Amino acid sequence: MSKVGIIDTTFSRINMGEIALQALSEDGTHEVMRRTVPGIKDLPLAAKWMLERDGCDIAMACGMPGPEPIDTMCAHEASTGLIQASLMADRPIIEVFVHMSEADSDRQLRKLTRNRVREHISNLLSMLDKPERLIARAGTGERQGWADSGPIE
Amino acid sequence: MSKVGIIDTTFSRINMGEIALQALSEDGTHEVMRRTVPGIKDLPLAAKWMLERDGCDIAMACGMPGPEPIDTMCAHEASTGLIQASLMADRPIIEVFVHMSEADSDRQLRKLTRNRVREHISNLLSMLDKPERLIARAGTGERQGWADSGPIE
Amino acid sequence: MSKVGIIDTTFSRINMGEIALQALSEDGTHEVMRRTVPGIKDLPLAAKWMLERDGCDIAMACGMPGPEPIDTMCAHEASTGLIQASLMADRPIIEVFVHMSEADSDRQLRKLTRNRVREHISNLLSMLDKPERLIARAGTGERQGWADSGPIE
Amino acid sequence: MSKVGIIDTTFSRINMGEIALQALSEDGTHEVMRRTVPGIKDLPLAAKWMLERDGCDIAMACGMPGPEPIDTMCAHEASTGLIQASLMADRPIIEVFVHMSEADSDRQLRKLTRNRVREHISNLLSMLDKPERLIARAGTGERQGWADSGPIE
Amino acid sequence: MSKVGIIDTTFSRINMGEIALQALSEDGTHEVMRRTVPGIKDLPLAAKWMLERDGCDIAMACGMPGPEPIDTMCAHEASTGLIQASLMADRPIIEVFVHMSEADSDRQLRKLTRNRVREHISNLLSMLDKPERLIARAGTGERQGWADSGPIE
Repeated sequence: MSKVGIIDTTFSRINMGEIALQALSEDGTHEVMRRTVPGIKDLPLAAKWMLERDGCDIAMACGMPGPEPIDTMCAHEASTGLIQASLMADRPIIEVFVHMSEADSDRQLRKLTRNRVREHISNLLSMLDKPERLIARAGTGERQGWADSGPIE
Repeated sequence: MSKVGIIDTTFSRINMGEIALQALSEDGTHEVMRRTVPGIKDLPLAAKWMLERDGCDIAMACGMPGPEPIDTMCAHEASTGLIQASLMADRPIIEVFVHMSEADSDRQLRKLTRNRVREHISNLLSMLDKPERLIARAGTGERQGWADSGPIE
Repeated sequence: MSKVGIIDTTFSRINMGEIALQALSEDGTHEVMRRTVPGIKDLPLAAKWMLERDGCDIAMACGMPGPEPIDTMCAHEASTGLIQASLMADRPIIEVFVHMSEADSDRQLRKLTRNRVREHISNLLSMLDKPERLIARAGTGERQGWADSGPIE
Repeated sequence: MSKVGIIDTTFSRINMGEIALQALSEDGTHEVMRRTVPGIKDLPLAAKWMLERDGCDIAMACGMPGPEPIDTMCAHEASTGLIQASLMADRPIIEVFVHMSEADSDRQLRKLTRNRVREHISNLLSMLDKPERLIARAGTGERQGWADSGPIE
Repeated sequence: MSKVGIIDTTFSRINMGEIALQALSEDGTHEVMRRTVPGIKDLPLAAKWMLERDGCDIAMACGMPGPEPIDTMCAHEASTGLIQASLMADRPIIEVFVHMSEADSDRQLRKLTRNRVREHISNLLSMLDKPERLIARAGTGERQGWADSGPIE
């Protein structure tokens, strides 16, 4: 039985970890562990710990960067750290960031976030259980949260 | 008894380390150590030393980047280094940066800095003693220094 | 018999991995392996796995960044991670990114992508089998996908 | 007796290493070593060598980035490398960069450079000999080269 | 007898490696090795291989980034990777990039490139054979390819 680690933040205005856990419970075939950290810059180490100390096979790092330029820079630093953590732990970390500037209203932000997290969980399960299935979806213009762009025929 | 490392700079115009130490003394249940370095680019190694040489379980790196574009670039380099140091030492480093451009007056900057440092100390204590408590606050839009944004219901 | 690893994404709107495999099959002298991941930030670890776990001698990482500034930042993070993964695995990773903003129409994007992937496969085969042949083409202004710029006489 | 390594560049228009050596000789209590490299991107490895091969306890990396955007990018790359080198060698590297765009005249640039190098040497000596003294100066708004900003009371 | 590694690209519109080899042959006191890779992002690993596998004491990485913003970003990623490769291999890599946007005509680009490569070869030989000689040239405002800026008296 493989193990999935979910990390999210107190900074986010939506409980992304809860959405992820709910989606995973519907699948029900994996052990799940959760951590919450204050902000997105705390995600890389928390993800590394889940992979190296807690025995998770894969981790998902959820965050909601704010709308200012400084927030974009923080997101960039966090993303760079997540890739580095993944290479150090030699296991995948799926980054799920929803930028507050992506949506025009709270309602849209909620919907976008819920869909993005759930669709990334679906990807996570494919990566974990049947990575070869992703090959059949290569180049199909998938998007997480927004409608798929679709393949260019 | 766990050990907390606080690092700040002589560059900062406010004694951030002192604010952190005061907040920790009110808690009073941890051993505390402090270092001061000249500028924010000196923080990554100082934090790594506290975690690896001084036996700290967690470190807080405080800095106050100036208002110019070059200062923003320095902050970016320092942040990247802090994440890298944290991954190398395999222990958390909480970054507490207050950009001088965030406030309109000295008075506001003082208030912002004091609140941010104290709220990050509160986070630090949660991470150290009861990390599971952070899960209950996931997605609640917490901010350090400014008023919380709150959750999107 | 050397082994080539091809990785692409479900995010891409064109099946870049398939183009690469087709080109490699025309050569027919190498073992080939393929992985597909959701997005370009997942490429660095997947490439590292191919080089370190699957025994590939060289990997190609294909992706199609979107047209927005955030996509450019993602591409930058992915590129940085690919170089880092390559240095860690001590084997080459050829990055093949086609930015959606490079083309004016779907038709042009298709043509550009097909040509770029195929020309990078040609480079990959040179690097793998006859790296000394590349010396004869040094400084000739080669481009992948667009017409060569040619040497400055 | 501790050992200090000074590195500067042939690119700089002012002999920063000489200023540093002069300041150190006034102190006179440390062994000093000097290297000169062509440009700022050569500083990270030279500093690492001083710390790891030459037995220096601390290194100072002096450079003078030019005024163009490409120079700013080079400085950013060099700074990132210096932090990385410091973390790898596990010893401090003090970065002393004077951007040519900081001054309006050669005269001002000379003065700025001299003051900045000397004040960083003073910091270096504190870090090396009496790091606890820096705590007393925490949050005092120190600047190197320009007048101190001072503490916000 | 020490060994020098020269790497260049097929992307460059001028045969930079050839210029470097010619300059080295005029010196004639070192063993020389050459590699050519497709683009500048392939330089970091190729340089690392020369230093670690081929026994080179120093490497020179030549590239000619294009004039578009995306090319500048690629150059930034390549530069970051070259510094990282140098720190990992613990030997110097001299970066010789000529941005196509630096020159107004093919003729000027040729001249600039030739001069820059040759002057970097001169630096390389100093670093390799008589690094102490560089100290005498510290702070003299040397430039590679363009006229020296000279020292500020």
